[in-house]
Amino acid sequence: MRYRLRIEYDGTDFCGFQIQGKGERTVQGTLEQAIGQVAGVAVRVHGAGRTDTGVHASGQVVHFEAAWSLPTEKIADALNVLLPPDLSVRSAEEASEGFHARFDATSRTYRYAILNRQARSALLARFAHYERRPLDVAQMARAAQELTGSLDFAAFGAPEEPGRSTVRTLDRFVVRRHRDVVLVSVRGNAFLRSQVRAMVGTLLLVGRGKLGPDDVRQIRQSRSRANCPALAPAKGLCLVRVDYDGIRFGAEDRRK
Amino acid sequence: MRYRLRIEYDGTDFCGFQIQGKGERTVQGTLEQAIGQVAGVAVRVHGAGRTDTGVHASGQVVHFEAAWSLPTEKIADALNVLLPPDLSVRSAEEASEGFHARFDATSRTYRYAILNRQARSALLARFAHYERRPLDVAQMARAAQELTGSLDFAAFGAPEEPGRSTVRTLDRFVVRRHRDVVLVSVRGNAFLRSQVRAMVGTLLLVGRGKLGPDDVRQIRQSRSRANCPALAPAKGLCLVRVDYDGIRFGAEDRRK
Repeated sequence: MRYRLRIEYDGTDFCGFQIQGKGERTVQGTLEQAIGQVAGVAVRVHGAGRTDTGVHASGQVVHFEAAWSLPTEKIADALNVLLPPDLSVRSAEEASEGFHARFDATSRTYRYAILNRQARSALLARFAHYERRPLDVAQMARAAQELTGSLDFAAFGAPEEPGRSTVRTLDRFVVRRHRDVVLVSVRGNAFLRSQVRAMVGTLLLVGRGKLGPDDVRQIRQSRSRANCPALAPAKGLCLVRVDYDGIRFGAEDRRK
Repeated sequence: MRYRLRIEYDGTDFCGFQIQGKGERTVQGTLEQAIGQVAGVAVRVHGAGRTDTGVHASGQVVHFEAAWSLPTEKIADALNVLLPPDLSVRSAEEASEGFHARFDATSRTYRYAILNRQARSALLARFAHYERRPLDVAQMARAAQELTGSLDFAAFGAPEEPGRSTVRTLDRFVVRRHRDVVLVSVRGNAFLRSQVRAMVGTLLLVGRGKLGPDDVRQIRQSRSRANCPALAPAKGLCLVRVDYDGIRFGAEDRRK
Protein backbone atom coordinates (compact mmCIF):
# COMPACT_ATOMS: atom_id res chain seq x y z
CA MET A 1 0.00 0.00 0.00
CA ARG A 2 1.16 3.54 -0.76
CA TYR A 3 0.81 6.18 1.95
CA ARG A 4 0.93 9.96 2.01
CA LEU A 5 2.05 11.90 5.10
CA ARG A 6 1.88 15.55 5.89
CA ILE A 7 4.86 16.35 8.12
CA GLU A 8 6.30 19.25 10.13
CA TYR A 9 9.88 19.92 11.10
CA ASP A 10 12.05 22.49 12.80
CA GLY A 11 14.91 22.47 10.28
CA THR A 12 17.48 24.00 12.65
CA ASP A 13 19.17 20.74 13.55
CA PHE A 14 18.65 18.88 10.26
CA CYS A 15 21.08 18.85 7.32
CA GLY A 16 18.16 19.44 4.97
CA PHE A 17 15.45 17.08 3.77
CA GLN A 18 17.37 14.79 1.49
CA ILE A 19 19.73 11.98 2.52
CA GLN A 20 23.28 13.03 1.70
CA GLY A 21 24.83 9.61 2.12
CA LYS A 22 27.36 10.82 4.70
CA GLY A 23 25.64 9.89 7.92
CA GLU A 24 24.27 13.41 8.38
CA ARG A 25 20.98 13.94 10.20
CA THR A 26 18.36 14.55 7.51
CA VAL A 27 14.56 14.67 7.57
CA GLN A 28 14.31 11.88 5.00
CA GLY A 29 16.78 9.67 6.86
CA THR A 30 15.12 10.21 10.24
CA LEU A 31 11.70 9.49 8.75
CA GLU A 32 12.88 6.38 6.88
CA GLN A 33 14.38 5.02 10.08
CA ALA A 34 11.10 5.44 12.01
CA ILE A 35 8.94 4.02 9.21
CA GLY A 36 11.40 1.15 8.73
CA GLN A 37 11.18 0.38 12.44
CA VAL A 38 7.41 0.08 12.22
CA ALA A 39 7.44 -1.80 8.89
CA GLY A 40 10.27 -4.15 9.84
CA VAL A 41 11.98 -3.54 6.48
CA ALA A 42 13.82 -0.63 4.87
CA VAL A 43 11.45 1.91 3.33
CA ARG A 44 12.22 4.71 0.87
CA VAL A 45 10.55 8.08 1.44
CA HIS A 46 9.91 10.65 -1.32
CA GLY A 47 9.26 14.28 -0.42
CA ALA A 48 7.44 17.00 -2.34
CA GLY A 49 10.18 19.57 -1.70
CA ARG A 50 13.87 19.00 -1.03
CA THR A 51 14.32 21.71 1.55
CA ASP A 52 17.85 22.97 2.31
CA THR A 53 19.70 22.69 5.60
CA GLY A 54 17.97 24.86 8.21
CA VAL A 55 14.72 25.29 6.26
CA HIS A 56 11.54 24.42 8.17
CA ALA A 57 8.26 22.85 7.11
CA SER A 58 4.74 23.00 8.47
CA GLY A 59 3.19 21.29 5.43
CA GLN A 60 5.76 19.09 3.68
CA VAL A 61 4.22 16.04 1.98
CA VAL A 62 5.95 12.69 1.52
CA HIS A 63 4.93 9.29 0.21
CA PHE A 64 6.22 5.77 0.75
CA GLU A 65 5.26 2.18 0.07
CA ALA A 66 4.76 -0.19 3.00
CA ALA A 67 3.25 -3.62 3.58
CA TRP A 68 2.15 -3.75 7.20
CA SER A 69 -0.91 -4.55 9.25
CA LEU A 70 -0.98 -1.09 10.87
CA PRO A 71 -4.39 0.61 10.45
CA THR A 72 -3.98 3.88 8.53
CA GLU A 73 -5.49 5.94 11.35
CA LYS A 74 -2.74 4.74 13.71
CA ILE A 75 0.23 5.56 11.46
CA ALA A 76 0.70 9.14 12.65
CA ASP A 77 0.65 8.11 16.32
CA ALA A 78 3.00 5.17 15.77
CA LEU A 79 5.53 7.39 13.99
CA ASN A 80 5.22 10.35 16.34
CA VAL A 81 6.24 8.12 19.24
CA LEU A 82 9.43 7.13 17.40
CA LEU A 83 10.33 10.48 15.82
CA PRO A 84 12.37 13.17 17.66
CA PRO A 85 10.62 16.32 18.98
CA ASP A 86 11.72 18.41 15.98
CA LEU A 87 10.01 16.16 13.40
CA SER A 88 6.34 15.20 13.51
CA VAL A 89 3.64 13.63 11.35
CA ARG A 90 0.61 15.86 11.07
CA SER A 91 -1.59 13.36 9.25
CA ALA A 92 -1.39 10.10 7.30
CA GLU A 93 -3.63 8.66 4.63
CA GLU A 94 -3.72 6.05 1.89
CA ALA A 95 -2.66 7.25 -1.56
CA SER A 96 -3.52 5.86 -4.96
CA GLU A 97 -1.06 3.39 -6.44
CA GLY A 98 0.79 5.78 -8.74
CA PHE A 99 0.80 8.79 -6.40
CA HIS A 100 4.11 10.65 -6.19
CA ALA A 101 4.57 13.40 -3.59
CA ARG A 102 6.98 15.34 -5.80
CA PHE A 103 5.87 14.74 -9.38
CA ASP A 104 2.14 15.02 -8.71
CA ALA A 105 2.33 18.25 -6.71
CA THR A 106 0.55 21.07 -8.51
CA SER A 107 1.81 23.86 -6.25
CA ARG A 108 4.08 24.58 -3.31
CA THR A 109 3.70 27.49 -0.90
CA TYR A 110 6.65 28.88 1.06
CA ARG A 111 6.68 31.53 3.74
CA TYR A 112 9.73 33.59 4.65
CA ALA A 113 9.81 35.46 7.98
CA ILE A 114 11.95 38.57 8.52
CA LEU A 115 12.13 40.16 11.96
CA ASN A 116 12.51 43.88 11.29
CA ARG A 117 13.06 45.93 14.42
CA GLN A 118 15.76 47.54 16.57
CA ALA A 119 16.71 44.42 18.53
CA ARG A 120 16.94 40.72 17.76
CA SER A 121 14.46 38.26 19.28
CA ALA A 122 15.39 35.21 21.36
CA LEU A 123 11.96 33.68 20.78
CA LEU A 124 12.13 33.98 16.99
CA ALA A 125 15.84 33.10 16.76
CA ARG A 126 15.15 29.77 15.05
CA PHE A 127 12.35 30.85 12.77
CA ALA A 128 13.02 34.34 11.42
CA HIS A 129 15.88 36.11 9.69
CA TYR A 130 16.75 39.29 11.56
CA GLU A 131 17.10 42.54 9.59
CA ARG A 132 17.65 45.59 11.71
CA ARG A 133 17.56 48.26 9.01
CA PRO A 134 14.06 49.56 8.19
CA LEU A 135 12.47 47.74 5.24
CA ASP A 136 10.24 49.46 2.69
CA VAL A 137 7.60 46.76 2.43
CA ALA A 138 5.52 48.52 -0.25
CA GLN A 139 8.56 48.64 -2.51
CA MET A 140 9.33 44.97 -1.81
CA ALA A 141 5.75 44.09 -2.78
CA ARG A 142 6.12 46.00 -6.05
CA ALA A 143 9.36 44.18 -6.84
CA ALA A 144 7.67 40.85 -6.06
CA GLN A 145 5.23 41.60 -8.88
CA GLU A 146 8.21 41.53 -11.27
CA LEU A 147 8.71 37.91 -10.21
CA THR A 148 5.08 36.84 -10.58
CA GLY A 149 3.84 34.90 -13.61
CA SER A 150 5.27 32.22 -15.94
CA LEU A 151 8.85 33.39 -16.17
CA ASP A 152 12.40 32.20 -16.64
CA PHE A 153 13.98 32.21 -13.17
CA ALA A 154 17.48 31.09 -14.25
CA ALA A 155 18.98 34.11 -12.43
CA PHE A 156 17.51 32.88 -9.14
CA GLY A 157 18.32 29.18 -9.12
CA ALA A 158 19.36 26.02 -10.89
CA PRO A 159 17.10 23.18 -12.04
CA GLU A 160 17.43 19.82 -10.26
CA GLU A 161 19.10 18.42 -13.38
CA PRO A 162 21.38 20.57 -15.58
CA GLY A 163 19.88 21.60 -18.90
CA ARG A 164 16.24 21.32 -17.77
CA SER A 165 13.84 24.24 -18.07
CA THR A 166 14.22 27.15 -15.68
CA VAL A 167 10.71 28.46 -16.36
CA ARG A 168 8.39 28.34 -13.37
CA THR A 169 4.94 29.77 -12.73
CA LEU A 170 4.46 31.81 -9.57
CA ASP A 171 0.84 32.79 -9.10
CA ARG A 172 1.01 34.40 -5.65
CA PHE A 173 3.79 36.54 -4.21
CA VAL A 174 2.77 38.63 -1.22
CA VAL A 175 4.92 40.78 1.07
CA ARG A 176 3.23 42.06 4.22
CA ARG A 177 4.19 43.53 7.56
CA HIS A 178 2.64 42.16 10.75
CA ARG A 179 4.01 44.48 13.46
CA ASP A 180 7.74 43.68 13.71
CA VAL A 181 7.68 40.80 11.25
CA VAL A 182 7.69 41.05 7.46
CA LEU A 183 6.19 37.91 5.92
CA VAL A 184 6.88 36.93 2.33
CA SER A 185 4.46 34.33 0.99
CA VAL A 186 5.05 32.79 -2.42
CA ARG A 187 3.22 30.04 -4.28
CA GLY A 188 4.40 28.39 -7.48
CA ASN A 189 3.93 25.23 -9.51
CA ALA A 190 7.54 24.38 -8.64
CA PHE A 191 10.77 26.12 -7.67
CA LEU A 192 14.41 25.93 -8.76
CA ARG A 193 17.03 25.07 -6.14
CA SER A 194 17.37 27.91 -3.60
CA GLN A 195 15.00 30.01 -5.68
CA VAL A 196 12.91 31.32 -2.80
CA ARG A 197 15.97 32.28 -0.77
CA ALA A 198 17.51 33.99 -3.82
CA MET A 199 14.31 35.95 -4.50
CA VAL A 200 13.92 36.95 -0.85
CA GLY A 201 17.62 37.93 -0.70
CA THR A 202 16.99 40.22 -3.65
CA LEU A 203 13.78 41.63 -2.14
CA LEU A 204 15.66 42.42 1.07
CA LEU A 205 17.96 44.69 -0.96
CA VAL A 206 14.87 46.33 -2.45
CA GLY A 207 13.46 46.83 1.05
CA ARG A 208 16.71 48.57 2.05
CA GLY A 209 16.59 50.84 -0.99
CA LYS A 210 19.66 49.29 -2.66
CA LEU A 211 17.64 48.01 -5.62
CA GLY A 212 14.36 49.02 -7.27
CA PRO A 213 11.66 46.90 -8.93
CA ASP A 214 13.22 47.69 -12.32
CA ASP A 215 16.57 46.28 -11.17
CA VAL A 216 14.80 43.10 -10.11
CA ARG A 217 13.22 42.75 -13.55
CA GLN A 218 16.62 43.27 -15.17
CA ILE A 219 18.25 40.67 -12.95
CA ARG A 220 15.54 38.18 -13.89
CA GLN A 221 15.84 39.00 -17.60
CA SER A 222 19.62 38.54 -17.49
CA ARG A 223 19.04 34.82 -16.76
CA SER A 224 22.45 34.79 -15.08
CA ARG A 225 22.96 33.59 -11.51
CA ALA A 226 25.99 35.84 -11.29
CA ASN A 227 23.55 38.76 -11.16
CA CYS A 228 21.58 37.45 -8.20
CA PRO A 229 22.85 39.68 -5.41
CA ALA A 230 22.16 37.62 -2.28
CA LEU A 231 20.70 34.45 -0.77
CA ALA A 232 18.51 35.01 2.30
CA PRO A 233 19.44 32.77 5.28
CA ALA A 234 17.71 29.38 5.46
CA LYS A 235 16.22 29.80 8.91
CA GLY A 236 13.55 32.30 7.79
CA LEU A 237 12.10 29.85 5.27
CA CYS A 238 9.24 27.40 5.82
CA LEU A 239 7.46 25.08 3.37
CA VAL A 240 3.89 25.65 4.51
CA ARG A 241 1.81 23.82 1.95
CA VAL A 242 1.84 21.43 -1.00
CA ASP A 243 -1.22 21.03 -3.19
CA TYR A 244 -2.40 18.22 -5.44
CA ASP A 245 -5.30 18.05 -7.83
CA GLY A 246 -8.32 16.65 -6.08
CA ILE A 247 -6.66 16.18 -2.68
CA ARG A 248 -7.61 18.30 0.28
CA PHE A 249 -5.53 18.18 3.43
CA GLY A 250 -6.35 19.48 6.82
CA ALA A 251 -10.05 18.75 7.30
CA GLU A 252 -9.23 15.68 9.37
CA ASP A 253 -7.05 17.32 12.00
CA ARG A 254 -8.63 20.64 12.72
CA ARG A 255 -11.13 21.18 15.49
CA LYS A 256 -13.35 24.21 15.62
CA MET B 1 22.98 54.93 37.11
CA ARG B 2 20.09 52.50 37.34
CA TYR B 3 18.86 50.85 34.14
CA ARG B 4 15.75 48.95 33.17
CA LEU B 5 15.80 46.30 30.41
CA ARG B 6 12.97 44.50 28.69
CA ILE B 7 14.25 41.04 27.79
CA GLU B 8 13.15 37.94 25.86
CA TYR B 9 14.20 34.35 26.31
CA ASP B 10 13.49 30.88 25.06
CA GLY B 11 13.45 29.13 28.44
CA THR B 12 14.03 25.63 27.05
CA ASP B 13 17.74 25.51 27.82
CA PHE B 14 17.76 27.67 30.96
CA CYS B 15 17.39 26.42 34.53
CA GLY B 16 14.92 29.21 35.21
CA PHE B 17 15.48 32.91 35.77
CA GLN B 18 17.12 32.96 39.16
CA ILE B 19 20.72 32.02 39.97
CA GLN B 20 20.71 28.75 41.87
CA GLY B 21 24.32 28.92 43.01
CA LYS B 22 25.24 25.55 41.49
CA GLY B 23 26.77 26.60 38.19
CA GLU B 24 23.50 26.00 36.33
CA ARG B 25 22.68 28.06 33.26
CA THR B 26 20.15 30.68 34.37
CA VAL B 27 18.78 33.80 32.71
CA GLN B 28 19.97 35.99 35.56
CA GLY B 29 23.45 34.47 35.55
CA THR B 30 23.84 34.75 31.77
CA LEU B 31 22.65 38.35 31.84
CA GLU B 32 24.89 39.29 34.77
CA GLN B 33 27.88 37.85 32.95
CA ALA B 34 27.20 39.91 29.80
CA ILE B 35 26.50 43.12 31.73
CA GLY B 36 29.56 42.52 33.90
CA GLN B 37 31.69 42.10 30.78
CA VAL B 38 30.54 45.49 29.49
CA ALA B 39 30.75 47.20 32.88
CA GLY B 40 34.09 45.69 33.86
CA VAL B 41 32.76 44.81 37.31
CA ALA B 42 30.28 42.32 38.73
CA VAL B 43 26.69 43.52 38.46
CA ARG B 44 23.59 42.19 40.19
CA VAL B 45 20.40 41.86 38.11
CA HIS B 46 16.88 41.91 39.59
CA GLY B 47 13.96 40.51 37.59
CA ALA B 48 10.25 41.29 37.81
CA GLY B 49 9.29 37.60 37.71
CA ARG B 50 11.31 34.58 38.80
CA THR B 51 10.25 32.27 36.01
CA ASP B 52 10.73 28.51 36.51
CA THR B 53 12.96 26.22 34.46
CA GLY B 54 11.64 25.98 30.90
CA VAL B 55 9.34 29.01 31.14
CA HIS B 56 9.77 31.61 28.39
CA ALA B 57 9.53 35.39 28.38
CA SER B 58 8.77 37.93 25.69
CA GLY B 59 8.42 40.83 28.13
CA GLN B 60 10.40 40.16 31.30
CA VAL B 61 11.75 43.33 32.95
CA VAL B 62 14.97 43.57 34.94
CA HIS B 63 16.94 46.37 36.55
CA PHE B 64 20.58 46.80 37.53
CA GLU B 65 23.00 49.45 38.67
CA ALA B 66 26.04 50.24 36.53
CA ALA B 67 28.65 52.96 36.28
CA TRP B 68 29.87 53.02 32.70
CA SER B 69 30.36 55.43 29.84
CA LEU B 70 28.09 53.44 27.51
CA PRO B 71 25.31 55.65 26.03
CA THR B 72 21.89 54.27 27.01
CA GLU B 73 20.81 53.83 23.38
CA LYS B 74 23.75 51.46 22.79
CA ILE B 75 23.14 49.15 25.76
CA ALA B 76 20.77 46.76 23.98
CA ASP B 77 23.15 46.33 21.03
CA ALA B 78 26.21 45.88 23.23
CA LEU B 79 24.48 43.17 25.27
CA ASN B 80 22.84 41.42 22.31
CA VAL B 81 26.27 40.85 20.78
CA LEU B 82 27.44 39.12 23.97
CA LEU B 83 24.27 37.20 24.85
CA PRO B 84 23.47 33.73 23.39
CA PRO B 85 20.76 33.38 20.69
CA ASP B 86 18.13 32.25 23.21
CA LEU B 87 18.38 35.42 25.34
CA SER B 88 17.98 38.95 24.00
CA VAL B 89 17.48 42.51 25.17
CA ARG B 90 14.44 44.08 23.58
CA SER B 91 15.04 47.59 24.90
CA ALA B 92 17.03 49.45 27.53
CA GLU B 93 16.37 52.71 29.33
CA GLU B 94 17.42 54.73 32.35
CA ALA B 95 15.35 54.17 35.48
CA SER B 96 14.80 56.42 38.45
CA GLU B 97 17.10 55.89 41.44
CA GLY B 98 14.77 53.82 43.56
CA PHE B 99 13.20 51.79 40.75
CA HIS B 100 12.86 48.07 41.46
CA ALA B 101 11.78 45.71 38.65
CA ARG B 102 10.07 43.34 41.06
CA PHE B 103 8.71 45.48 43.89
CA ASP B 104 7.47 48.32 41.68
CA ALA B 105 5.64 46.13 39.18
CA THR B 106 1.89 46.78 39.27
CA SER B 107 0.92 43.82 37.10
CA ARG B 108 2.32 40.79 35.28
CA THR B 109 0.72 39.13 32.27
CA TYR B 110 1.37 35.49 31.43
CA ARG B 111 0.26 33.50 28.41
CA TYR B 112 -0.03 29.74 28.34
CA ALA B 113 -0.20 27.91 24.97
CA ILE B 114 -1.86 24.50 24.60
CA LEU B 115 -1.69 22.70 21.25
CA ASN B 116 -4.97 20.80 21.03
CA ARG B 117 -5.21 18.54 17.98
CA GLN B 118 -4.76 14.95 16.83
CA ALA B 119 -0.99 15.10 16.32
CA ARG B 120 1.89 16.86 18.04
CA SER B 121 3.76 19.71 16.32
CA ALA B 122 7.51 19.82 15.67
CA LEU B 123 7.38 23.59 15.16
CA LEU B 124 5.60 24.29 18.46
CA ALA B 125 7.52 21.64 20.43
CA ARG B 126 9.38 24.24 22.50
CA PHE B 127 6.55 26.69 23.05
CA ALA B 128 3.28 24.84 23.60
CA HIS B 129 2.05 22.05 25.84
CA TYR B 130 0.46 19.31 23.75
CA GLU B 131 -2.97 18.02 24.77
CA ARG B 132 -4.49 15.54 22.35
CA ARG B 133 -7.89 15.09 23.97
CA PRO B 134 -10.52 17.64 22.91
CA LEU B 135 -10.77 20.60 25.29
CA ASP B 136 -14.04 22.34 26.14
CA VAL B 137 -12.77 25.91 25.97
CA ALA B 138 -16.07 27.52 26.97
CA GLN B 139 -16.08 25.49 30.18
CA MET B 140 -12.43 26.39 30.84
CA ALA B 141 -13.32 30.07 30.43
CA ARG B 142 -16.17 29.71 32.94
CA ALA B 143 -13.83 28.04 35.43
CA ALA B 144 -11.29 30.85 34.92
CA GLN B 145 -13.93 33.28 36.19
CA GLU B 146 -13.83 31.40 39.52
CA LEU B 147 -10.18 32.43 39.74
CA THR B 148 -10.68 36.07 38.84
CA GLY B 149 -10.73 38.82 41.47
CA SER B 150 -8.94 39.49 44.77
CA LEU B 151 -8.80 35.98 46.16
CA ASP B 152 -6.77 33.67 48.35
CA PHE B 153 -4.80 31.42 45.98
CA ALA B 154 -3.10 29.28 48.67
CA ALA B 155 -4.37 26.13 46.92
CA PHE B 156 -2.46 27.09 43.77
CA GLY B 157 0.94 28.14 45.05
CA ALA B 158 3.21 29.22 47.85
CA PRO B 159 4.36 32.75 48.66
CA GLU B 160 8.05 33.57 48.13
CA GLU B 161 8.50 33.63 51.91
CA PRO B 162 6.54 31.28 54.20
CA GLY B 163 3.79 32.93 56.20
CA ARG B 164 3.23 35.83 53.78
CA SER B 165 -0.16 36.56 52.27
CA THR B 166 -1.48 34.24 49.58
CA VAL B 167 -4.09 36.76 48.39
CA ARG B 168 -3.53 38.01 44.85
CA THR B 169 -5.67 40.07 42.49
CA LEU B 170 -6.23 38.69 39.01
CA ASP B 171 -8.12 41.17 36.85
CA ARG B 172 -7.99 39.37 33.49
CA PHE B 173 -8.23 35.64 32.83
CA VAL B 174 -9.11 34.76 29.26
CA VAL B 175 -9.22 31.32 27.60
CA ARG B 176 -9.59 31.32 23.81
CA ARG B 177 -9.11 28.94 20.92
CA HIS B 178 -7.16 30.05 17.86
CA ARG B 179 -7.50 27.10 15.46
CA ASP B 180 -5.44 24.28 16.99
CA VAL B 181 -4.06 26.34 19.86
CA VAL B 182 -5.84 27.19 23.10
CA LEU B 183 -4.34 30.34 24.64
CA VAL B 184 -4.77 31.16 28.31
CA SER B 185 -3.97 34.77 29.15
CA VAL B 186 -3.89 35.89 32.77
CA ARG B 187 -2.97 39.21 34.35
CA GLY B 188 -2.50 39.84 38.05
CA ASN B 189 -0.86 42.24 40.46
CA ALA B 190 1.47 39.37 41.41
CA PHE B 191 1.52 35.56 41.46
CA LEU B 192 2.47 32.88 43.96
CA ARG B 193 5.17 30.38 43.01
CA SER B 194 3.96 28.10 40.18
CA GLN B 195 0.50 29.67 40.46
CA VAL B 196 -0.10 30.06 36.74
CA ARG B 197 0.97 26.50 35.97
CA ALA B 198 -1.21 25.18 38.83
CA MET B 199 -4.23 27.15 37.61
CA VAL B 200 -3.71 26.05 33.98
CA GLY B 201 -3.21 22.45 35.11
CA THR B 202 -6.57 22.66 36.85
CA LEU B 203 -8.24 24.31 33.84
CA LEU B 204 -6.92 21.50 31.62
CA LEU B 205 -8.89 19.03 33.75
CA VAL B 206 -11.95 21.25 33.35
CA GLY B 207 -11.40 21.26 29.58
CA ARG B 208 -11.33 17.47 29.59
CA GLY B 209 -14.55 17.28 31.60
CA LYS B 210 -12.90 15.88 34.74
CA LEU B 211 -13.74 18.94 36.80
CA GLY B 212 -16.39 21.66 36.63
CA PRO B 213 -16.22 25.37 37.52
CA ASP B 214 -17.75 24.56 40.91
CA ASP B 215 -14.94 22.12 41.66
CA VAL B 216 -12.42 24.82 40.82
CA ARG B 217 -14.10 27.22 43.25
CA GLN B 218 -14.06 24.53 45.95
CA ILE B 219 -10.39 23.80 45.36
CA ARG B 220 -9.60 27.51 45.72
CA GLN B 221 -11.73 27.82 48.83
CA SER B 222 -9.99 24.82 50.42
CA ARG B 223 -6.75 26.89 50.50
CA SER B 224 -4.86 23.59 50.49
CA ARG B 225 -2.18 22.82 47.92
CA ALA B 226 -2.95 19.12 48.38
CA ASN B 227 -6.20 19.77 46.51
CA CYS B 228 -4.53 21.29 43.43
CA PRO B 229 -4.83 18.45 40.94
CA ALA B 230 -2.02 19.17 38.48
CA LEU B 231 0.78 21.50 37.39
CA ALA B 232 0.82 22.28 33.64
CA PRO B 233 4.25 21.77 32.02
CA ALA B 234 6.60 24.77 32.02
CA LYS B 235 7.16 24.95 28.27
CA GLY B 236 3.67 26.30 27.51
CA LEU B 237 4.18 29.33 29.75
CA CYS B 238 5.50 32.75 28.72
CA LEU B 239 5.82 35.98 30.72
CA VAL B 240 4.59 38.43 28.10
CA ARG B 241 4.36 41.70 29.95
CA VAL B 242 5.16 43.56 33.16
CA ASP B 243 3.54 46.90 33.90
CA TYR B 244 4.58 49.79 36.11
CA ASP B 245 2.73 52.95 37.04
CA GLY B 246 3.59 55.67 34.60
CA ILE B 247 5.94 53.61 32.44
CA ARG B 248 5.04 52.61 28.93
CA PHE B 249 7.16 50.10 27.07
CA GLY B 250 7.19 49.29 23.44
CA ALA B 251 6.75 52.62 21.68
CA GLU B 252 10.48 52.84 20.99
CA ASP B 253 10.97 49.56 19.21
CA ARG B 254 7.90 49.16 17.04
CA ARG B 255 7.75 50.33 13.45
CA LYS B 256 4.48 50.76 11.61
